[in-house]
Amino acid sequence: MTKICGDAENFATSALRGFADIHRDIVRLVRGGVIRSRPATRGKVSLVVGGGSGHFPAFNGYVGKGFADASVAGDVFASPSTQAILRIAREAHLGGGVILGYGNYAGDVLNFSIAAERLRAEGIDTRMIATTDDIASAPEDEAPRRRGTAGDLPVFKIIGAAAEEGMTLDQVEAIGKHANARTRTFGVAFDGCTLPGEKEKLFHVPDGRMAIGLGVHGEPGIDETDVLSAEALASLLCDRLLREAPAGGGSRITAVLNGLGATKYEELFVLWEAIIPHLENAGYTVIAPLAGEYITSLDMAGCSLTIVWLDEELERLWRAPVESAAFRRDLVSGSFTGGTPSPADIPSAYMKSLTEAGRQGGRCVATVMHKLSLALSAAEHELGQIDALAGDGDHGQGMARGAGAAARAALAAVDAGAGPASVLAAAADAWADRAGGTSGALWGAGLFAFSTAFDDAAAPDAQSIATGLRRAMEKIMALGKARPGDKTLMDALHPLVETFEDNLRKGEPIARSWQDAAIVSMEAAEATKDLLPRLGRARTHGERSKGHPDAGAISLALCARVVGEELAALSLR
Amino acid sequence: MTKICGDAENFATSALRGFADIHRDIVRLVRGGVIRSRPATRGKVSLVVGGGSGHFPAFNGYVGKGFADASVAGDVFASPSTQAILRIAREAHLGGGVILGYGNYAGDVLNFSIAAERLRAEGIDTRMIATTDDIASAPEDEAPRRRGTAGDLPVFKIIGAAAEEGMTLDQVEAIGKHANARTRTFGVAFDGCTLPGEKEKLFHVPDGRMAIGLGVHGEPGIDETDVLSAEALASLLCDRLLREAPAGGGSRITAVLNGLGATKYEELFVLWEAIIPHLENAGYTVIAPLAGEYITSLDMAGCSLTIVWLDEELERLWRAPVESAAFRRDLVSGSFTGGTPSPADIPSAYMKSLTEAGRQGGRCVATVMHKLSLALSAAEHELGQIDALAGDGDHGQGMARGAGAAARAALAAVDAGAGPASVLAAAADAWADRAGGTSGALWGAGLFAFSTAFDDAAAPDAQSIATGLRRAMEKIMALGKARPGDKTLMDALHPLVETFEDNLRKGEPIARSWQDAAIVSMEAAEATKDLLPRLGRARTHGERSKGHPDAGAISLALCARVVGEELAALSLR
Repeated sequence: MTKICGDAENFATSALRGFADIHRDIVRLVRGGVIRSRPATRGKVSLVVGGGSGHFPAFNGYVGKGFADASVAGDVFASPSTQAILRIAREAHLGGGVILGYGNYAGDVLNFSIAAERLRAEGIDTRMIATTDDIASAPEDEAPRRRGTAGDLPVFKIIGAAAEEGMTLDQVEAIGKHANARTRTFGVAFDGCTLPGEKEKLFHVPDGRMAIGLGVHGEPGIDETDVLSAEALASLLCDRLLREAPAGGGSRITAVLNGLGATKYEELFVLWEAIIPHLENAGYTVIAPLAGEYITSLDMAGCSLTIVWLDEELERLWRAPVESAAFRRDLVSGSFTGGTPSPADIPSAYMKSLTEAGRQGGRCVATVMHKLSLALSAAEHELGQIDALAGDGDHGQGMARGAGAAARAALAAVDAGAGPASVLAAAADAWADRAGGTSGALWGAGLFAFSTAFDDAAAPDAQSIATGLRRAMEKIMALGKARPGDKTLMDALHPLVETFEDNLRKGEPIARSWQDAAIVSMEAAEATKDLLPRLGRARTHGERSKGHPDAGAISLALCARVVGEELAALSLR
Repeated sequence: MTKICGDAENFATSALRGFADIHRDIVRLVRGGVIRSRPATRGKVSLVVGGGSGHFPAFNGYVGKGFADASVAGDVFASPSTQAILRIAREAHLGGGVILGYGNYAGDVLNFSIAAERLRAEGIDTRMIATTDDIASAPEDEAPRRRGTAGDLPVFKIIGAAAEEGMTLDQVEAIGKHANARTRTFGVAFDGCTLPGEKEKLFHVPDGRMAIGLGVHGEPGIDETDVLSAEALASLLCDRLLREAPAGGGSRITAVLNGLGATKYEELFVLWEAIIPHLENAGYTVIAPLAGEYITSLDMAGCSLTIVWLDEELERLWRAPVESAAFRRDLVSGSFTGGTPSPADIPSAYMKSLTEAGRQGGRCVATVMHKLSLALSAAEHELGQIDALAGDGDHGQGMARGAGAAARAALAAVDAGAGPASVLAAAADAWADRAGGTSGALWGAGLFAFSTAFDDAAAPDAQSIATGLRRAMEKIMALGKARPGDKTLMDALHPLVETFEDNLRKGEPIARSWQDAAIVSMEAAEATKDLLPRLGRARTHGERSKGHPDAGAISLALCARVVGEELAALSLR
């Protein structure tokens, strides 16, 4: 919904003035449009583009070096007047003649045609190029009737580059017509737009539906379906466009994936990822493609794909440097037909243990991680339900994912011959990386702190386990800022640490010391049902958590129980 | 509404891959983020920025020369993992130490802090800068608790420029903290955003309302009001921000007006135009401001204003060249503290008539235009009503505006001593410029064609009027493609021309010839009620127009009647 508006009648004029102020390094304001602030060489062909407002960056954002010399902005969705075109074209004229560039809409055709005739009568050689790229707007055999849409960007950019190179008016006109003849756009819309000052949308697409080929001012489309997945949408757009490949089009193309306003960059990038294989499988090489907002329609939701079939000259002109408000590029170096892939992620080199005791210790750590993974996976649903009573219900999933990744990383480290410190460090990193969220980060940091108490050359013993456990608790407390009583995992961790250390001091064997501590830990975890949270979700979820234990405390106590069982089975010193 | 989505769980990863493909001239993809494709000098301080996805161009779009060296992208609205930060910071490290830049959100603070500690343990000197610019998120005396939002752009840009200049890690860190301490953001939201794959918005703002200070993930704001006008919104944003000017902030600032996704460029430009006087009246000089989308929140509607109080060093770093996907600038030349205004529009030099007869003829034309203006103004409402029966009801307004402007332009030309051809040409241009729309363009072109039959040195006579009238009809027929019978103004114009010429041929005096023709014209205009339109609005308005005359034909006949009265009063030859 278009929300920012002063006097609706002056929306386009205010927007023009604000634009010209922000981009004063590139353009200067004239009545009804903008002209480059740093004029080009005398004698150069001038490109003057224009159309209705409401489509930024079309057309004011196209003014700049290597692109248009001037733009003429009409009212919202209305053609600029003949007089505005005349006035601005006269001022932009550098002695080399004028190309008027606009989309093929009745009002624009009328006003630009009259202006062209008047300019010619005044002795300014003037040519017109109306873009006709929208293949949904008329059948192929009536191509001259088609509307101009996102093809404006590449067609005008190519014309601007040709003019910048110093081509004559005849040459620039010919290139422009050639580029337009090799440019095709196909688009979909998810919803209409609101005119400034209006409460209702100018036109609608039903919720959950997608209008195929709908025009940017609501001109009738050709079909309507349910909203498609990114994959299916990519297929629809590519199939329709590639079916209309121009004769002799060749195998080198560029593409412009355009968002209409409320369809955002990341959605366009998701769609682009799905488009790439369609173009490549059809045998095309894609040169310097774009995805972004190049011609919008206020807050309309939707997107279009434009393909330009290049030849050597069009490719050179498409890649030429450009410096406008909407589009800057300086492809001076490197090849842009294929990205340089990053080197594959190299797993950190594990510290290889030189001792059998160390390797044996590493295997023990990996076994514990494996058992934790099994237990958390089994408890995933239950932990999720406890969490959902007070939070967003993803705790069980995060713990299961994290422990699974940790177990796999531990095994890989064992295979590489790592000792207990390296195995636990690898497991810790994998846990945090895969579990995500705050609890994933805390578990990863805690386990990593635990690992620093181990020695890769020796099996873990009671002393190193106690030191590791305390380091883990201190790390989590420092990072999470939680104290016992705050209804977090600390309520289960703190009694585990204290009881385990007490039991060891009393001379209890390690497995018994831990198992006793794990029981205390689980009791404390269950007792969190009588607490209210102090941190994090406290403000929003405080009330909802009443009477339910904290999921993080429960899962910590559960892990403590599993570790106790393993310690008993392993009979460590 | 976020509509383009494949597997919602992989939205962020797909978006990252699509982004890296499109911007392969600037970045290369690594797991969980991107790194500059053309590495900077060894020994330079590396800036690694990051946060949740869903905020493009934050943060992947910030990578490039003069800005960040790498970015780490978490899941949608979720912090990246400690491991991803570690992995990417290690790869981006050039030997000069690392700055981790992120917004002050709990999850980000946790993961970046753990990563920083780990990097330092590995021997990579690492510093953290968390932005805290959002003044709505905590009171001034608790500034370190504030969230980071659109201040990310200027703060990270300044850090990136400092690193590019070759400053040491200590210096870059100090500059970054200094920039953050002098950066303030205040924003409003019109509506929430939808997570990929979800049908409902994550949070809402009631229709017609505006949430003040609402966070980009829906964090609570501080107030709610009805949507304000651009002027009142500008006042709200500036007042709150300027009240918090830092001590010793000086009078030179920059500003970033940021759109959250569905609030579009032209709305931002309208708002910017309203903001300028507030900043200037407060005594500030605004250096190289920006208006656009620099940190979004999927399809959220809203905007924020960020102000950075500059000093000499911050200004140099803010203006330094930058080449990222989201933000490129190369302010190599010119002053950007004030735009170069365009020379005032110079009215076309009127052809000054050298003869008294010519000047007298010019006055006659101006008088006719004046009378047309009065008549059309009086008929504005009635013409609007006729038009509303079949069209959009703006015909009367357009005609009245056009004729009014034409009358004023004619008078100005007369004052300059112009003859009839120049006076009518000036009137024609003004008419089309002010009336707008198709009928404005046709009237302007028709009157201009009419003027070509006149001679500036002589008063109009029967012959030149007849020639002019026919030229006007031919021009309108050629441009409008309408023939008599199509239910357009041509149905009134064609009988006017034919009857007038017939009457002259029969030897009737000019005034009588025209007045008779005007009567025939009005009869024909009224008879259009029995016609159906063939052109233009035919498809949509054909049925609605049944039984009603065409407003364009009626207004033409009305003008013909007025001209006839004047011709009688003027008693031309």
